[in-house]
Amino acid sequence: MQNIRATLKSYDMPFKELLRRDGRVYIRTTKALHAARKCSRVFGISSVSPALETGSDFDPVVAGCLSLAERKLATGDRFAVRCRRIGEHPYSSQRVCRTVGRRILQKFADQEVRVDLDDPDVRLGVEVRDDLGFVFSDIIRGVGGFPLGVQGRVVGLLSGGLDSAVACWLMMKRGSPVAPLYFNNQPYTDGSTTKRAIEVARALSDWAVGFPRRLHIIRHGENLKEIMEGVPRRLTCLLCKRMMYRVAERIADEVEAEGLVTGEAIDEQASQTLRNLRVLDEATERYPVHRPLLSFNKAETDRLARKIGTYTISTRNVRGCEGAPHKPATKAKLEEVLEAESRLKIVEMVERSIGRRTVIDL
Amino acid sequence: MQNIRATLKSYDMPFKELLRRDGRVYIRTTKALHAARKCSRVFGISSVSPALETGSDFDPVVAGCLSLAERKLATGDRFAVRCRRIGEHPYSSQRVCRTVGRRILQKFADQEVRVDLDDPDVRLGVEVRDDLGFVFSDIIRGVGGFPLGVQGRVVGLLSGGLDSAVACWLMMKRGSPVAPLYFNNQPYTDGSTTKRAIEVARALSDWAVGFPRRLHIIRHGENLKEIMEGVPRRLTCLLCKRMMYRVAERIADEVEAEGLVTGEAIDEQASQTLRNLRVLDEATERYPVHRPLLSFNKAETDRLARKIGTYTISTRNVRGCEGAPHKPATKAKLEEVLEAESRLKIVEMVERSIGRRTVIDL
Repeated sequence: MQNIRATLKSYDMPFKELLRRDGRVYIRTTKALHAARKCSRVFGISSVSPALETGSDFDPVVAGCLSLAERKLATGDRFAVRCRRIGEHPYSSQRVCRTVGRRILQKFADQEVRVDLDDPDVRLGVEVRDDLGFVFSDIIRGVGGFPLGVQGRVVGLLSGGLDSAVACWLMMKRGSPVAPLYFNNQPYTDGSTTKRAIEVARALSDWAVGFPRRLHIIRHGENLKEIMEGVPRRLTCLLCKRMMYRVAERIADEVEAEGLVTGEAIDEQASQTLRNLRVLDEATERYPVHRPLLSFNKAETDRLARKIGTYTISTRNVRGCEGAPHKPATKAKLEEVLEAESRLKIVEMVERSIGRRTVIDL
Repeated sequence: MQNIRATLKSYDMPFKELLRRDGRVYIRTTKALHAARKCSRVFGISSVSPALETGSDFDPVVAGCLSLAERKLATGDRFAVRCRRIGEHPYSSQRVCRTVGRRILQKFADQEVRVDLDDPDVRLGVEVRDDLGFVFSDIIRGVGGFPLGVQGRVVGLLSGGLDSAVACWLMMKRGSPVAPLYFNNQPYTDGSTTKRAIEVARALSDWAVGFPRRLHIIRHGENLKEIMEGVPRRLTCLLCKRMMYRVAERIADEVEAEGLVTGEAIDEQASQTLRNLRVLDEATERYPVHRPLLSFNKAETDRLARKIGTYTISTRNVRGCEGAPHKPATKAKLEEVLEAESRLKIVEMVERSIGRRTVIDL
């Protein structure tokens, strides 16, 4: 209810009341279609129907249907009327359907409309619940999932690329607000990469109306430089990511998160082998790393990115990280990674990163 | 190649040769359709086509197409011919298509067949690669993913229910062989639950032809009894699972796995909150816990279970675990869990479990 209210307010949609009965939420507004479209993007909602409120008396219900039919039916259309009724009323659902059907056939007699319950062009729905009554025709599919906020928070490692954005969104869809965290690898990337990440974070925030719109940014270039200079090149990415995980845990402490989320999938990238994921996880101490894309392939991720609205941003041409070696380790041994890290001042690097962190409002 | 060979052998399918060229594998067999069907279930294969081998000379290719057309075309059918050619040949792909098209139109002149490149009823495909030449019509969609074995092994916590089986299968699909591990909670369940797990493990093994068909079984009832007696009832499931994770890590050591896999999804079950997943993960020391279903909903999991062939087994009525409390903790604090565990002899319980483990051949 909170999330729906925040969405309506955020888009300046006038509404008189939000009503909850059983599994339904009723919004009384003069902008039903607009409100329905926006609310279809609120997590937890499976469908939305702009409706005309008629009350539960028989005559206004039938009149409402006829007025709706007038707007929806075209010559030659097949239609169906369905009525769902909960509570005690002096009429049956069947009587509603029959009466509406007959009156429509009379009214549109010269337009060759006919009844087709199996595959209609226009569906008229009546929903009566005790004293409430509505007629509607369109059913807009909602995004589904669970209401944002029913689960604890996660820190999302957001690169601005396709995978991480989709991974964050999937956690949100399951009810978990995401605090996005971006690692700025300049001078090994440039400003275009950061700009892309900010825009992706913004697009994700649009799915979380009413929640903080903030992006944590860590200056990671110096860490990367020290890693590149101090350890075998093939281990660069693993050590870079392990450092990211450690910093992310510190942010998780701050925002009281329950875990981290990353866009990693098995073997979609050469470095994302099961072995490497194990080496990465070993760097975390206090939080699980959630990977909703673990078994996804590229097509599945792309499809979701398009739906979310991050696809065109994420596929924009940006300068890739130049710290990445030509041949990254795919089967790194934990021992060699630990040995390599022993040459770096890990604790100081994490502290320095946290000390210089910035938080921007999206 | 190994997995394809094992599959053909396991189903007693005669084949003369397995040939690999570029991204294609050619199987020379007298049972093309049967072999194609079985191989479409081998991970890593995106499609399979039973084909007629013609060689790369022009006339036999055309003759092959005509012979295939004779078997495939019915009166009134629209057809298309496509040719894919790699290498040097004294004819063009276009000439193949045109010649075949013209000859088919002549031969079937009285059957009203016609060419339709956009939406044909029958597609005739010609594939010529250097000295090899094939004609085919059917394209059987393969399971996709990566070849089993390209990733390291995981230990799969397999209950016999829907989720865990699908989770294991998804890891297999990404190339990771699964060593399934079942915890027998008798006397809190009965033999029907174990039987179901064995059958599910068998169904999964059918997707891993050529790999060990083994199920590790742990007698877990005594552990559960001690947990139920020693700690607050609402924590039973968390402590029971944490114990499972610890035992699974020992099995992972043995089979040299790179991680564990579980069927957990966020909030599909009351106990699977992000908080609880965090409490569970804390029990592992050496391996990541992979949860490919993390963001899946029930419909998505059910659909996959049907495809895999575990749905009817997993939905069979078995005695549920009677150790589960009516109100399991959904937001357990790690401290209270650790405090509760301090009253148990965790190390001894793990040792006892491992000591009594059985391994059955499926």
